[in-house]
Amino acid sequence: MTQTTCLYPQYLIPVEPAATVLSDHALVIRGKSILDILPAADARRQYAEASHIPLATHALMPGLINLHAHSAMSLLRGLADDLTLMEWLNHHIWPAEKQHVSDEFVFDGSCYAMAEMIRGGTTTVNDMYFYHDAVARAGVQSGMRTIVGCSILEFPTNYAQNADEYLQKAMNARASFENQPGIDFRLAPHAPYTVADATFQKIVRTANQHGIGIHCHIHETEDEINSSLQQYGMRPLQRLHQLGLLSQKLIAAHVVHASDEEITLLANTGVSVAHNPASNLKLASGFARIHAMQNAGVNVGIGTDGAASNNKLDLLGDIRLAALLAKAESGNPSALTAHQALEMATLAGAKALGMEQQTGSLVPGKFADLIAIDLSYIETQPLFDPVSQIVYASGREQVSHVWINGQCVMQERQLTTLDQGALLSKAAWWQQQIKPQSC
Amino acid sequence: MTQTTCLYPQYLIPVEPAATVLSDHALVIRGKSILDILPAADARRQYAEASHIPLATHALMPGLINLHAHSAMSLLRGLADDLTLMEWLNHHIWPAEKQHVSDEFVFDGSCYAMAEMIRGGTTTVNDMYFYHDAVARAGVQSGMRTIVGCSILEFPTNYAQNADEYLQKAMNARASFENQPGIDFRLAPHAPYTVADATFQKIVRTANQHGIGIHCHIHETEDEINSSLQQYGMRPLQRLHQLGLLSQKLIAAHVVHASDEEITLLANTGVSVAHNPASNLKLASGFARIHAMQNAGVNVGIGTDGAASNNKLDLLGDIRLAALLAKAESGNPSALTAHQALEMATLAGAKALGMEQQTGSLVPGKFADLIAIDLSYIETQPLFDPVSQIVYASGREQVSHVWINGQCVMQERQLTTLDQGALLSKAAWWQQQIKPQSC
Repeated sequence: MTQTTCLYPQYLIPVEPAATVLSDHALVIRGKSILDILPAADARRQYAEASHIPLATHALMPGLINLHAHSAMSLLRGLADDLTLMEWLNHHIWPAEKQHVSDEFVFDGSCYAMAEMIRGGTTTVNDMYFYHDAVARAGVQSGMRTIVGCSILEFPTNYAQNADEYLQKAMNARASFENQPGIDFRLAPHAPYTVADATFQKIVRTANQHGIGIHCHIHETEDEINSSLQQYGMRPLQRLHQLGLLSQKLIAAHVVHASDEEITLLANTGVSVAHNPASNLKLASGFARIHAMQNAGVNVGIGTDGAASNNKLDLLGDIRLAALLAKAESGNPSALTAHQALEMATLAGAKALGMEQQTGSLVPGKFADLIAIDLSYIETQPLFDPVSQIVYASGREQVSHVWINGQCVMQERQLTTLDQGALLSKAAWWQQQIKPQSC
Repeated sequence: MTQTTCLYPQYLIPVEPAATVLSDHALVIRGKSILDILPAADARRQYAEASHIPLATHALMPGLINLHAHSAMSLLRGLADDLTLMEWLNHHIWPAEKQHVSDEFVFDGSCYAMAEMIRGGTTTVNDMYFYHDAVARAGVQSGMRTIVGCSILEFPTNYAQNADEYLQKAMNARASFENQPGIDFRLAPHAPYTVADATFQKIVRTANQHGIGIHCHIHETEDEINSSLQQYGMRPLQRLHQLGLLSQKLIAAHVVHASDEEITLLANTGVSVAHNPASNLKLASGFARIHAMQNAGVNVGIGTDGAASNNKLDLLGDIRLAALLAKAESGNPSALTAHQALEMATLAGAKALGMEQQTGSLVPGKFADLIAIDLSYIETQPLFDPVSQIVYASGREQVSHVWINGQCVMQERQLTTLDQGALLSKAAWWQQQIKPQSC
């Protein structure tokens, strides 16, 4: 018989309907799904046979959706900081990737990243990297809802020699995991400056033919835009529009630089933006115009980017950073409220992925992807508004429980699908491979 | 006999000399002070009779110096967010302060804030608020090195009726705690728009006569500058310069808006800046020009501001935020490196307070104000550079031990001077007083 579990949080924040906080309510999980949300007293009576889990000082909310990550790069965290982008890439990250990235590296690094993400309340990751099979296997092992973004570019790496080979490997990986619940695939042309017109066109055709989504870095830096103006006589967004890339299928990562007209174009074509507030600051890319995008109706989610340029896979922290930056960037302290920021990292992320019927809010029938945050800490008392405390005051260490697909993958801070000690041993081993002389 | 304790961290980061990380070293505390830093093997031999504390997976570094705080406002955290400054002040914060702020509120709120600060690795706070005695008593109780900034303004509050009365109360409080170790006082004219010329002049005279430092909000918002141009025909910094305020004695909080000439003026007069990165974003004040200030030789420390506008008293988080923002604001990813950001929140803070001979770095003879951060977490492995991990990847929950004045005020996350349960009960009581209908 399918297991039924009733959760009794102090506050239930469903995200849908918007700006709602319920007290004295229970959420019922049956199997993989949310079965019911109802007054606590009714739940005790109606579901008497269920397991009952009290969460007396906790807020229960949808799990966070990390809309842009390079999970495996966790193994390179802190290898090189405080450098210009080209020095960082040419002299540190690309040489390290060339030397070390393999199926094993990607599997170990992705499992490691998923452990950190689960510990921080993330339940879905929209990844982008190489060795697509390895990312998918890490998702199966961790239980994380994983969208494997299959990198495609013109240049050879350890994984493939040219765009056709990347694309072929992507389609093969997708076929291997076709019936695997919780694992999905996206085609991920790396960026306008690493992918040629013909490849973009082939990707659009393949995506349309098979109903696959697309994930691409777009307008991350001014350099990218200037070199496109030189090479193509137009800005990347215009070029991609001509190539048929801009649609509801597309998640555009970063979009730090966008004119009013380009924001309107994104809204009209239904493109979703993955905002990466920490990485955009660290690489000095700039301040994305999130308030203007919201006003124009662009769907915006939040991503951490990879640990080599963040260096935390801490979506809760990035929700706060996004809310703070939107105010200063727009000069408006009421821009991107706490409730809106929370929705951005949950329901908006699900919409971007075309999964808003499956996850991103606490609604009966959706998958049970949810987290509990303990608000009884010194840091989150007194408590006048639980959503303000979650967004502006709490830390990811206050995430106590995480359920994905109805499975409790972290219980009272203990991971259940991943072995933390084994992951730390693997990380130490990789550290020795990558930089034996490091501290 | 005075107690001697030897600490054996994995990494010892003294901050002075700059950019140094020692391995296999011990730090020796005797009484209130750092007695020695020496190779671990020598310490075991030379100080055989001491207590020996292994910190095998930890970094040991100077305690953090919070250069701008309104501690007692912790009791108002999350009461009102996402509002314009004037709506926030006029309809939420000032009415709540008028109704509730008292000696008891300030003592309870300051103790509460100090608990949060100690849990996050802060060992010195440069405060600014009313009820100066209560702040000082909280400092004595918590063991926190406390600089009581005595607010002075022209307007009446619960505490005093006019500038003369604020100043008199400040001097009385200072006299009462004259011989109390770890407690110091500063005169804190609130801001250029709330303090008249004659009062500023009186404060400068009193400060010079008694050798007291000054702490003032300056150039926080564009409105402040515009209203000064209207009222005085000049920008606030120019006015304060004419009034004799700009000197090594002054800590200028915020300075979000500063021209090149004003930055040169700050450098030439020896003013220190307390940078408040989170609060400047949340209130949409803007992006302070920290990289330009550093290049000009201005001494810059970091503050949290009050919990009503941050909403975390998390200096470790604000070091990261400062480092990230400096890169994006200046367009230079090598601006404000991890080592520089760490120095900002330690040694530069001590310099601002005129206490660089006493605290802010791990140097024999200085007070033992230091913290241990456990880097064995999933979030901070693999480890290529401990300073990068501390600044960019760690969270305040990884602070395991805090010593102030040689006293261990937090041991393995347990506070020793403050009763966490009692503080939470007080917070719950104040919550009911302030907003009985809150969640």
